Amino acid sequence: MATVEELKKKVQELEAKLAAAQGSAGAVRQKIDVMSSEVVDTNPYSRLMALKRMGIVNNYEKIREMSVAVVGVGGVGSVTAEMLTRCGIGKLILFDYDKVELANMNRLFFQPHQAGLSKVAAAAATLQAINPDVVIDSHNYNITTVDNFQKFCDTITTGSLKGSRVDLVLSCVDNYEARMAINTACNELNQKWFESGVSENAVSGHIQFIIPGETACFACAPPLVVASKIDEKTLKKEGVCAASLPTTMGIVAGFLVQNTLKYLLEFGTVTHYLGYSALSDFFPTMSLKPNPQCDDMECRSRQAEARARPAVELATEVTEDLAPLHHDNEWGISLIDENNPEDDDSANLKLVDGVQVAYSVPVDSSTPESSTGGAVAASELSLEDLMQQMKSM
Amino acid sequence: MATVEELKKKVQELEAKLAAAQGSAGAVRQKIDVMSSEVVDTNPYSRLMALKRMGIVNNYEKIREMSVAVVGVGGVGSVTAEMLTRCGIGKLILFDYDKVELANMNRLFFQPHQAGLSKVAAAAATLQAINPDVVIDSHNYNITTVDNFQKFCDTITTGSLKGSRVDLVLSCVDNYEARMAINTACNELNQKWFESGVSENAVSGHIQFIIPGETACFACAPPLVVASKIDEKTLKKEGVCAASLPTTMGIVAGFLVQNTLKYLLEFGTVTHYLGYSALSDFFPTMSLKPNPQCDDMECRSRQAEARARPAVELATEVTEDLAPLHHDNEWGISLIDENNPEDDDSANLKLVDGVQVAYSVPVDSSTPESSTGGAVAASELSLEDLMQQMKSM
Repeated sequence: MATVEELKKKVQELEAKLAAAQGSAGAVRQKIDVMSSEVVDTNPYSRLMALKRMGIVNNYEKIREMSVAVVGVGGVGSVTAEMLTRCGIGKLILFDYDKVELANMNRLFFQPHQAGLSKVAAAAATLQAINPDVVIDSHNYNITTVDNFQKFCDTITTGSLKGSRVDLVLSCVDNYEARMAINTACNELNQKWFESGVSENAVSGHIQFIIPGETACFACAPPLVVASKIDEKTLKKEGVCAASLPTTMGIVAGFLVQNTLKYLLEFGTVTHYLGYSALSDFFPTMSLKPNPQCDDMECRSRQAEARARPAVELATEVTEDLAPLHHDNEWGISLIDENNPEDDDSANLKLVDGVQVAYSVPVDSSTPESSTGGAVAASELSLEDLMQQMKSM
Repeated sequence: MATVEELKKKVQELEAKLAAAQGSAGAVRQKIDVMSSEVVDTNPYSRLMALKRMGIVNNYEKIREMSVAVVGVGGVGSVTAEMLTRCGIGKLILFDYDKVELANMNRLFFQPHQAGLSKVAAAAATLQAINPDVVIDSHNYNITTVDNFQKFCDTITTGSLKGSRVDLVLSCVDNYEARMAINTACNELNQKWFESGVSENAVSGHIQFIIPGETACFACAPPLVVASKIDEKTLKKEGVCAASLPTTMGIVAGFLVQNTLKYLLEFGTVTHYLGYSALSDFFPTMSLKPNPQCDDMECRSRQAEARARPAVELATEVTEDLAPLHHDNEWGISLIDENNPEDDDSANLKLVDGVQVAYSVPVDSSTPESSTGGAVAASELSLEDLMQQMKSM
């Protein structure tokens, strides 16, 4: 057990080593007050401000006022945080309670010399060195415990640079409980967020934009993942170490931050669901309507609020009720194709092919004879088949 | 008075800062002789070797015998090199002649304290710290000069771990001359390579797999890029600083390395052309046949060799001659849809919609009355229109 004296001595030693190391590594850059578009080698923002001159973004420097929470600083979350840092985001709030291990070195961002450090502390130090203009707030705890969940909600509520709610929450966690905690918090706080995920076989992933009351929340439907086309029996064995690749995780982080930038800086179209299958370079997209029978009471409240609002935001998105996936419409899942706003009579469309539920739906206790466990019927004609037909036109 | 808890937190912060400051100078892990699939926190390869148990890759450890050349270590090339390093590639050969600048900090990989260092030296130091098992060979010169071009060819020819030809060349350069140099070398050496690129407005990119004699080389057709849907007049002004984003470049690097892994380790399907449009999350794919009238004599020789070979490798790819883009078929561009091997009578297909040529084709001197400059006629029905029709089926 370390004493106060021993710890003080340790602090002094570390401060001396840090001063020496910083001297040898070269000073990091000074803070910059205002983003400049000046084209000089010393300006870290010239290539970002060029997005204005290129006609892509109207007000790039607005990113300096934005605050984003990244929950989970692993293979996807660490790269997400680095991309936002390099883009000059105003404030980043990081949540994780894991430590860096050598077993993480097959993904981007962390380095072997950081093994043993907490992920948030290691990430914060690296990110601050990359861009000292970003305000970085680290939280080293598990958000799913009762006390920490309240701290998490409070941080989301007051975490912006001005002390108000953050602009966006990005879920980069790797388990169901943490996703449900984020979902519960964001429904309660009416907070827009992105869910992201990578399959255990490392070759598919997805992002999903959740607007409480307007798109399906994480409790509205079983989580959707890109079909792996791999025998499911080889997956998800208890206690088996999941595979991962820096490619798939970097791509999913790229999709997540690109859509975050589109949302925050108002350019392009924010995709509601984007999947990625590495084996065939297949990218299903779709949009999901919330479930009127969602188990989350706050989700149902947000849906009622959304119905009461003038349909401005959803004006271009015609949603539709499709055949329920269960005979009792337990989930009431319905899907829309956001590319297809005019055509709302495509009654055969259930899930975009290539997308499937990640978990079996619990059998409804009112229908104990049901033994399918909620398997989703796939449309008989695959998207690829359809694309082949289409391309031969 | 500081408490034990406060001091422990301070120690952790300082350790993280020290680790970040030490960067590549800090202690790195020991070399590992044989890739292990043991699931322990100290094994940097456990999550990669798990690809075997997951049924994705048969022989992951074969990557240790592979050598890849990365030409251009900028926004795409540096991330490409890092991904391959973390995947445990046997040998990486890096080519660049640029220096790290603060203006590069809006893309992943390089850090402010590296400003002023050559890109290959800075990259090699960081990569070696990340994975000491990878053999890294750096070349700090411009491959387009006559002397250096020969050095480049010699390095490709003898660069593998066994002194033979490298397994793959990845082009991550940002200009036409360097791409043409790589193209010339690879046609001459019969070397497979990937071209990659990101648009000057930062919101689109692509990768293209070039198999000499079997798919279109860089001289067979004007370079293909994903249509930006942005007024072309706002782009490519002489001397204007191009925009760039860590997202787009990270995604393109991810696509490049993912397809490299599929090619080297023989899993999934290697995509011949994959585009990415960030504004709409649109991903066109296609395959390009070589041009029988290609200006590159070596390309025409490779085509003759390919025709003389038993059609094993191309058995699943039915190529087709389509309406020439010029009345004199100067370029003889023809395209196939690799998803559609059975159907070879789609005579209306020219370029997959959403893909366009990056440059106007020079007007053929034999037809001076031609004033179109080789603009490619787009098919009248867009891919998106077709997908909408399809999804309403």
